[in-house]
Amino acid sequence: MSILAVDVGGTSTRAAVVTPDGTCIGYARAGRGNPTSSSVDDAAAAIVQATHNALTAAGAELGDVVAGIIGIAGAGAEAGASLRSALAAAGVHDRVAFEVDVLTTYCSGTLAPDGYVIVAGTGAAAVRILDRRTEATCDGLGWLLGDSGSGFWIGHRAVRAAVDALGDRGPATVLVDPVLQLLGVDPEPRHGRHGRPITVDRVMAAVYRLRPVELAEFAPIVFDAAARGDAVADAIVDGAATELSATLSTVVSTDVRGPLVLGGSILTNRPEMADRVGASFRDLTGLDEPVVPVADGIAGAAVIALLRSGVDVDTPTFERLHRTLASIR
Amino acid sequence: MSILAVDVGGTSTRAAVVTPDGTCIGYARAGRGNPTSSSVDDAAAAIVQATHNALTAAGAELGDVVAGIIGIAGAGAEAGASLRSALAAAGVHDRVAFEVDVLTTYCSGTLAPDGYVIVAGTGAAAVRILDRRTEATCDGLGWLLGDSGSGFWIGHRAVRAAVDALGDRGPATVLVDPVLQLLGVDPEPRHGRHGRPITVDRVMAAVYRLRPVELAEFAPIVFDAAARGDAVADAIVDGAATELSATLSTVVSTDVRGPLVLGGSILTNRPEMADRVGASFRDLTGLDEPVVPVADGIAGAAVIALLRSGVDVDTPTFERLHRTLASIR
Repeated sequence: MSILAVDVGGTSTRAAVVTPDGTCIGYARAGRGNPTSSSVDDAAAAIVQATHNALTAAGAELGDVVAGIIGIAGAGAEAGASLRSALAAAGVHDRVAFEVDVLTTYCSGTLAPDGYVIVAGTGAAAVRILDRRTEATCDGLGWLLGDSGSGFWIGHRAVRAAVDALGDRGPATVLVDPVLQLLGVDPEPRHGRHGRPITVDRVMAAVYRLRPVELAEFAPIVFDAAARGDAVADAIVDGAATELSATLSTVVSTDVRGPLVLGGSILTNRPEMADRVGASFRDLTGLDEPVVPVADGIAGAAVIALLRSGVDVDTPTFERLHRTLASIR
Repeated sequence: MSILAVDVGGTSTRAAVVTPDGTCIGYARAGRGNPTSSSVDDAAAAIVQATHNALTAAGAELGDVVAGIIGIAGAGAEAGASLRSALAAAGVHDRVAFEVDVLTTYCSGTLAPDGYVIVAGTGAAAVRILDRRTEATCDGLGWLLGDSGSGFWIGHRAVRAAVDALGDRGPATVLVDPVLQLLGVDPEPRHGRHGRPITVDRVMAAVYRLRPVELAEFAPIVFDAAARGDAVADAIVDGAATELSATLSTVVSTDVRGPLVLGGSILTNRPEMADRVGASFRDLTGLDEPVVPVADGIAGAAVIALLRSGVDVDTPTFERLHRTLASIR
């Protein structure tokens, strides 16, 4: 009797096999599986591969799986149906259900049925959770329409600020060198056609070869520059924290008390961001509920699958799950 | 002996046939020809069609053309070579040269060889002109990297502001209704999956079906809302004027005196924007040089072609060109 937990991400897909007492007995990673940033076929292949390898590591097979949860962005959206048929073709049966990744992320951080989760990785969204269901969602609208304060939002501003500095349109910033480096652009002091700096022409050519979401990869540069006291970078970080707090404030309700779970690299790798958003959560609620950063949604997917299969997930089980997952991954 | 002037745009392509005294004797329009927003083949087809029809209207043929200028965005870029071979295949010989559209726009507005031009349509750029050459360019970097204060910049903010208002993340704004209307989205007061307003889900689906640059079509909505006193729209218009002034200030040099030519719908259809940018130009230069709005670059393309064919374009010729163009188009 095995429980399957899968966490599908834009960078990698992770699967874990868990016993009813919360012990993780198999774990595997595969390629990225977010059907909005890769294809549905790639997503299905990544899920199947991670699942297969985790089961093999656990000495189990698909037939042993009594319940499973796949945490994925935009679960239930159009991609869901095609993904489900691709998985069914690979033998992944319907005891394995999809849940939206913000819910699995929330359940990775707490056993409290009510609370809040804010995720800021490539994208950004905040959700109010009631009885382990998504009761209110703000943002998560993608790079063009939303994702305010996300990795994309930060990286996009970094590249624009670098170009403004290069073209003397904006203030000088230490962002310029790392942006050029990450784009693979050699600086060239001369001006080219139409009297534009040749470096700017090269940046332009390099940026339009990227998919827009790839600008999220420029976010770490901004935190480094802010730590070195760069005013331009600092203003971007400050703006991102303000945006994420605005997104969170939209879903906070005085009727729902509970912890705040933080997910995504912008919140979990950056203490200054976690502190800012945590402080704003305490201001909004006037309470001192825990603020819990989590690595991803895989533990939460296991928690939901365990509950759905009738296991009463208590604190020792939850702690065992986290401990055994940490030792195996 | 005919002069050919072509103005290639993202919406339409225009061609005019002009005699050496500046009289326009043939004019035609064709589809959009900007090779960055349509294909090179479409661009070439639009140029050939407009040219052919303008020559037919003038009772002339390609062999009569002694000089021609095609004003186009990003002239000389990679698209230039493929476009040139496509045109050569259609019999458009090498007495017809490409010039960047900001230069033809400048020359539509003035006979002064030195001055400035700022264009804000779908995109935005400012250029310092010295001896009818582009001496310094700021922005014109496209929607992802630049185009600050452009139609895209304004329309993008309009759609984001509408979504923020719909999701209670931002202030209410009269932008909501016209944004929904232009997107073809029916409002739905209920909340859908994950507790997000169904209207927001619909906006999201509609926006990601667009090419990003198409968000420029939402700019007029913002000016209308600002005129009705909407604070959100007013802040967007104010921000756009500030961005365009920053772009202009980057190219203004105390060494170069001359008029400012304004091009693009955001500056030529919106007196408040033209006034703001014109005032900032006078502040920057400390001079009272003329600020001249122009419809497009077709007159300027004719001016450059006339000069290249040895015609001394004087004020009567320039006025005749504008008068006869206006009567024929």
